[in-house]
Amino acid sequence: MFKLVLLRHGESTWNKENRFTGWTDVDLTEKGRQEAAQAGRILHQEGYTFDVAYTSVLKRAIKTLDLCLDEMDRLWIPVIKSWKLNERHYGALQGLNKAETAAQYGEAQVHIWRRSYDIPPPALTPDDDRFPGHDPRYAGIAPASLPLFESLKDTVNRFVPYWETELAPVVKSGKKVIIAAHGNSLRALVKHLDHIADDAIAELNIPTGVPLVYELDEALHPLKQYYLGDPAQIAAATAAVEAQGKAR
Amino acid sequence: MFKLVLLRHGESTWNKENRFTGWTDVDLTEKGRQEAAQAGRILHQEGYTFDVAYTSVLKRAIKTLDLCLDEMDRLWIPVIKSWKLNERHYGALQGLNKAETAAQYGEAQVHIWRRSYDIPPPALTPDDDRFPGHDPRYAGIAPASLPLFESLKDTVNRFVPYWETELAPVVKSGKKVIIAAHGNSLRALVKHLDHIADDAIAELNIPTGVPLVYELDEALHPLKQYYLGDPAQIAAATAAVEAQGKAR
Repeated sequence: MFKLVLLRHGESTWNKENRFTGWTDVDLTEKGRQEAAQAGRILHQEGYTFDVAYTSVLKRAIKTLDLCLDEMDRLWIPVIKSWKLNERHYGALQGLNKAETAAQYGEAQVHIWRRSYDIPPPALTPDDDRFPGHDPRYAGIAPASLPLFESLKDTVNRFVPYWETELAPVVKSGKKVIIAAHGNSLRALVKHLDHIADDAIAELNIPTGVPLVYELDEALHPLKQYYLGDPAQIAAATAAVEAQGKAR
Repeated sequence: MFKLVLLRHGESTWNKENRFTGWTDVDLTEKGRQEAAQAGRILHQEGYTFDVAYTSVLKRAIKTLDLCLDEMDRLWIPVIKSWKLNERHYGALQGLNKAETAAQYGEAQVHIWRRSYDIPPPALTPDDDRFPGHDPRYAGIAPASLPLFESLKDTVNRFVPYWETELAPVVKSGKKVIIAAHGNSLRALVKHLDHIADDAIAELNIPTGVPLVYELDEALHPLKQYYLGDPAQIAAATAAVEAQGKAR
């Protein structure tokens, strides 16, 4: 039996400002830093250790991981960063306030952009500053592989092959793995592991800063999954994530 | 022409307490964190970027690197951690106060332990809690390869082969490299690059938290080397390092 731990990054400055973030490399807030450290303390108290960690190339996930590992006294383990674990790319919505966008386009449209499986947000153009091809962290990647936008389906199609080729073999080797990533890249993995239907996955809300444990059999089929921590706090964190994107 | 940047970690809690640290995994002080961040700001102001970073498996070096890279907006680059970059192992001196040790054994003996090239400190025994074989971060390494003590010569003989096989090829490939490490592992590299004599290297004091730039030719022979930052601050940091280990 293998254990895998997923961790969604703590609150970022744009979570707080209620903006569509996507691949924008915003920082954690002080609350987000505290959420990350608390996740590490809970994992440490519960006796978890990790041999290797995976995260995205976005600082809110990297810092969440570092703060968590520091509390576990495991900063010394290898950390592998890949853009394949990035948040869903939100196209031309990146930077826009969710409530203002909802006021302009209607909550129904914003709900479609945020919660449909295969309807993408408006696309960037390659000359837009927000196109990843202008960012040195993606310099080694063919521009044609870089998104101008992503639906959740696109994120699944980006992340699941990486899981299959890079991550699953490491989990199967018996190494204890933590993945610190984003709401939608973790949704992609949960969809894959739990065989969640296309029209149901977007309604699954993973709370920030709460370790999500998967117990997996030898074929990496889930035996069970559960959050670590105080149930009331987890429920509050989940409700907070659900409430995002309202016009309020 | 290649540029390589070396960075000695900022002040640690045991620097502040004037203890022999070695492989003990002590944290940075707030001053140490500020030194690390300042190094990053200077590198950023001077237009430096890095493609890959190397550090030890000790948190004071890892955190120095992370704080530096965060200021440069480069947390996303690959970071490779190796015990080969660790500080010199101080054997049975680890944990002892330098001034108390000087009062007990005499400043001359402490100077020999700290500044001779090939005279080792007193050895640990393998059943000592301080022996690295008891620490999970060294679990993959044959116990016979793990030190009970190291002279500076031993540290050179540990680090220079790693430089030759792992680091030098990366520098020669044109990748821009930063190494965040420790007083003695960096001495080992400086000795190797600059062909400093055995009896001279231990008197070389590398200040904490100050980027040391090497410009290297195609064979990685140094063309020149210099510190980045305010010369008065660098002189003060060097003097502070020199003053360690006095009975005071």
